[in-house]
Amino acid sequence: MLPFEVTVLGCGSALPTLRHVGSAQVVNIHEKFFLVDCAEGTQLQMRRMRLHLNRINHIFITHLHGDHCLGIPGLVSTLSLLGRTAPLHIHGPQGIEHLFDSVLNPLAHGATYELVFHPLDADTPQVCFEDRTVEVSTVPLNHGVPCCGYIFREKPLPPHIRKEAIAQYDIPTAYMHLIKAGNDITLPDGRVLPNELLTIPAAPPRAYAYCTDTRFTPAIAPLLEGVDLLYHEATYADAEESVCAVVYHSTARQAATIAHLAHARQLLIGHYSSRYNDETRLLEQARSVFPNTLLANEGLTVEVKSEQ
Amino acid sequence: MLPFEVTVLGCGSALPTLRHVGSAQVVNIHEKFFLVDCAEGTQLQMRRMRLHLNRINHIFITHLHGDHCLGIPGLVSTLSLLGRTAPLHIHGPQGIEHLFDSVLNPLAHGATYELVFHPLDADTPQVCFEDRTVEVSTVPLNHGVPCCGYIFREKPLPPHIRKEAIAQYDIPTAYMHLIKAGNDITLPDGRVLPNELLTIPAAPPRAYAYCTDTRFTPAIAPLLEGVDLLYHEATYADAEESVCAVVYHSTARQAATIAHLAHARQLLIGHYSSRYNDETRLLEQARSVFPNTLLANEGLTVEVKSEQ
Repeated sequence: MLPFEVTVLGCGSALPTLRHVGSAQVVNIHEKFFLVDCAEGTQLQMRRMRLHLNRINHIFITHLHGDHCLGIPGLVSTLSLLGRTAPLHIHGPQGIEHLFDSVLNPLAHGATYELVFHPLDADTPQVCFEDRTVEVSTVPLNHGVPCCGYIFREKPLPPHIRKEAIAQYDIPTAYMHLIKAGNDITLPDGRVLPNELLTIPAAPPRAYAYCTDTRFTPAIAPLLEGVDLLYHEATYADAEESVCAVVYHSTARQAATIAHLAHARQLLIGHYSSRYNDETRLLEQARSVFPNTLLANEGLTVEVKSEQ
Repeated sequence: MLPFEVTVLGCGSALPTLRHVGSAQVVNIHEKFFLVDCAEGTQLQMRRMRLHLNRINHIFITHLHGDHCLGIPGLVSTLSLLGRTAPLHIHGPQGIEHLFDSVLNPLAHGATYELVFHPLDADTPQVCFEDRTVEVSTVPLNHGVPCCGYIFREKPLPPHIRKEAIAQYDIPTAYMHLIKAGNDITLPDGRVLPNELLTIPAAPPRAYAYCTDTRFTPAIAPLLEGVDLLYHEATYADAEESVCAVVYHSTARQAATIAHLAHARQLLIGHYSSRYNDETRLLEQARSVFPNTLLANEGLTVEVKSEQ
């Protein structure tokens, strides 16, 4: 199975603590590595977790609050020192393209590669990146400032060839790409071999959604329908629910409700308020609504698993 | 003895590693805390070392390279979240006042305190801060960009009162501040008590100099004359000496030569290149010139000791 996994670099909220730092994750899809959010210290967290900075080509930023993007100047600068040559793409709500102008322009003299910003309209769900492996689309969130989550959807994989059927009918190698592409095969004696006889379907494409920061917004559930793993912010416990609407955050229970409404397979919660010294309560409250919930933690890697 | 000590938050060079992060130190003079340089992650390093962010009122930045100042936006932002009200002063070479404009202006809406930049001419030695306790002056360095070190000089302390002499001559409490100020005292019977009979001189004022980043520049030695502790960058070992002039850095031996020329009491070296997995060689090479040398390390606190 080709890898599809998420490594948490930081899952704290605005105030970094000794337990949790600001938001960042690395999403590994078939050994392509994407960075989602980039709090202060992200480059060091990546080093701690033995993830290579230079393998990141695309960074997706949810919104322009410091605890989600202040690691960008340091990372950008380090990549020049490492002699990077490939362009680095940074996607995020409009404004991202100028946020670091004053800091990065003086550093630009020494830049060894091109930095390409892709500002997007955070209020409109859209595909913001696509290649042969993955499609990344946005989820408008409700955080008082332009803010969007991101869904990483694996592209459908070709079916697996059934080797024993190939041997049985003595099918030449030249036919393999036709079979992989879903075609039936006609043998020299005129017999037609239907594709399903020759192949085993690939696992269904997997999807991971990253949704932070946001107020409880059930309207996003249809966009998240059936994702295999949902990361949803859970800044507060039930007791702080009244605060949530004011500060545009969610409780753990609300995160679980979104996972339930979206028929997600698994929920990962994070973006914990610095007031908690232990997130057990958040986990319990989420699990009471959506049992298959995990607590994010720095260094945790979660595999995105499909139904099979 | 009133405290005067230096805590190293980071003593790596441009590339942060798992062993050393970018430059930052906290200087504690009589329980007043000053931050010198502020690399990415400095706020977290302060938390790790149980130093209170809010006790910092003045930050001194040597130059505008990322590994010396990219921690400012995060620190500034966190202080607002903590509800700080006192102004925060940031001193540094000209350009510092606009370096973070694009990042900080969007955050300024939520600011709870005033941020005051004090741009200075890094090429001219000058007193850049002074209060009742300390005088901070600059040392022009040679780093290819405007760059200055800082010397923290304790103000002379009043002499200690000799309690036994006070008792012996039955001197009223009202005279104490006159004695502390250095005056002689005339008793009711006309006898004059010279001040030195009534007091013990305070320890001589202590001085700490922080010099990074710089090429080997013997011309700075007179400015550093007699400091009790000198931090001097030692990016490279002897074997890399030829690189130093090109990249505007110093070897450990050159750092030690400056300490020797300046008649410093103790030398602390740091700003190690990420190429070293062990700085023993740097220490040995420095000690061969200046025996009283220490290796900086994250978390190390060094007391600034005067001659006594």
